[in-house]
Amino acid sequence: MGNLKTAGARGYIVDAVPASAAPGAVNPAAEFDAYLKRRVRLVEETLAQRLHQPPGPAARLLEAMRYSLLAGGKRLRPVIALAACEAVGGKLESAMGLACALEMIHTYSMIHDDLPCMDDDDLRRGKPTNHKVYGEAMATLAGDALLTDAFGVLARLTPPAVARGALVETVAELAAAAGSPGMVAGQTLDLMDEGRAVSLAELEDLHARKTGALFVAAAVGGGRLGGGIESQLAALDAYARALGLAFQVIDDLLDVEGSTEQVGKRTHKDKDRGKATYPALLGIAASRRLAERLRADAIDALAAFDHRAEPLRRLAKLVVERKQ
Amino acid sequence: MGNLKTAGARGYIVDAVPASAAPGAVNPAAEFDAYLKRRVRLVEETLAQRLHQPPGPAARLLEAMRYSLLAGGKRLRPVIALAACEAVGGKLESAMGLACALEMIHTYSMIHDDLPCMDDDDLRRGKPTNHKVYGEAMATLAGDALLTDAFGVLARLTPPAVARGALVETVAELAAAAGSPGMVAGQTLDLMDEGRAVSLAELEDLHARKTGALFVAAAVGGGRLGGGIESQLAALDAYARALGLAFQVIDDLLDVEGSTEQVGKRTHKDKDRGKATYPALLGIAASRRLAERLRADAIDALAAFDHRAEPLRRLAKLVVERKQ
Repeated sequence: MGNLKTAGARGYIVDAVPASAAPGAVNPAAEFDAYLKRRVRLVEETLAQRLHQPPGPAARLLEAMRYSLLAGGKRLRPVIALAACEAVGGKLESAMGLACALEMIHTYSMIHDDLPCMDDDDLRRGKPTNHKVYGEAMATLAGDALLTDAFGVLARLTPPAVARGALVETVAELAAAAGSPGMVAGQTLDLMDEGRAVSLAELEDLHARKTGALFVAAAVGGGRLGGGIESQLAALDAYARALGLAFQVIDDLLDVEGSTEQVGKRTHKDKDRGKATYPALLGIAASRRLAERLRADAIDALAAFDHRAEPLRRLAKLVVERKQ
Repeated sequence: MGNLKTAGARGYIVDAVPASAAPGAVNPAAEFDAYLKRRVRLVEETLAQRLHQPPGPAARLLEAMRYSLLAGGKRLRPVIALAACEAVGGKLESAMGLACALEMIHTYSMIHDDLPCMDDDDLRRGKPTNHKVYGEAMATLAGDALLTDAFGVLARLTPPAVARGALVETVAELAAAAGSPGMVAGQTLDLMDEGRAVSLAELEDLHARKTGALFVAAAVGGGRLGGGIESQLAALDAYARALGLAFQVIDDLLDVEGSTEQVGKRTHKDKDRGKATYPALLGIAASRRLAERLRADAIDALAAFDHRAEPLRRLAKLVVERKQ
């Protein structure tokens, strides 16, 4: 990844400019691409280290955890946490514990959501789902362990320089975002709403819990661990709410428009299950417009931030333009 | 619970002597009983408050969580945490967050262990298991939410007076005790070992993870949050290891000797499933002697503590003499 720490004062990346880039000729798209790749790599290396364990009696459990955790994926929540931390002037390391915890929690939620008693899915990220490979009992346990270990990683990896209050608040907010008021409530509503007529407001509430809460925990938590002040955290909250909803609207559109090969999981399943979606409620064109407006809202929320928030702005673009 | 804070200097209870007790005539057994009842009540009140939520779209999720969490039970782990905190001279409030978190994690583990894909049990604490009442999907989610919320309760309820280091270490140790190196590894071994010949050393390792780890997290965490020094934490660690194993030996004995009515869950199931147990490996009389020796070990570990560790000593007696 050559020429570390050579970018100019205007660049938001101080450690990831390609060696081939001529001074002053940084291509913004390439710069963002390098920024993203480096952070995804750092998160994946840290996760792999945390889940490394000499072969022991429960080696199979670790294998099942690693199977889903290290299966690729966009690593969107960790990158948001790191980018929010850096946007307020914090060091990347300050949010690395949160970044890894978010990905572990996201992964556990997918393993449990895919279980036969839940959504009963066979395919995830182009691979057989966890329980198809390891069985239901082990998949349940692998999810339980990823969720539990996530809080240990957050506690262990957050540097001592982060203030007590910021760390404790981040633990509590992550638990609320993932737990009974947040993601689990969203999954509960999702199960209960199947086949039922759902209003636009109800659908928005469902997604704010099921997807949005973890996006908000990423952005606000990252900002808080980076030393952000209240007005910055409020802006990051607004950014993440818009981004989370945009993410879900696009997810619904991909389910309608995409093929399984392209998206890496079974598509058209929302309709098969009678799940409410944005395209079903608004139509495809209006859903696309909504996603565009949410992207603009997300970027507007960051108006008071300087160039260091550029990765967050580009992430909003990425989320809305993604094809999987 | 009259006459609060009137016990003499020798009494380890400063807030729970019955109004009827004549001065200087405190009965140790009655004193311990009052001590226990008051702490169980405090934990149950706090848990009920934390899981109180105005009826909302996910009210059913909260109902499923409360069904198992507030179904009674010995509340042994919370009481150990509170008693360890008080044994080192700490205030009860310092360990209340940990106490509640431990019970929530213990409850989640029972809900998931009882699932059809795991132990497939219909009865727990004399009541139908969670999935028999709420279905598999909701039981999985209720367990997930209890586990997640537990870390929020620990973060939110621990008073600001507890030092950053003590709280962060407690979060990390609780996660390790409950997660992939601890309880989940124990459950994995339990599932994998069914029907296989298991050595005494393997059985001890299984139980150290499945049951012991949470006992240790309770005792050491409680001591740490109470301001205990390293030698005290090491003693509490030894106490809890012996106590945890004694608990499991007795559990195995109750499964062989007890009736379903008495124990409140299906008995004789270990043998039906080909699970290794202490009575099967050692015989009933030797298992009983082992439990007695472990009780003595637990009490010996507390030799350097004063009268404030008396509840911990009596808890060891209670665990070995229990009938359910």
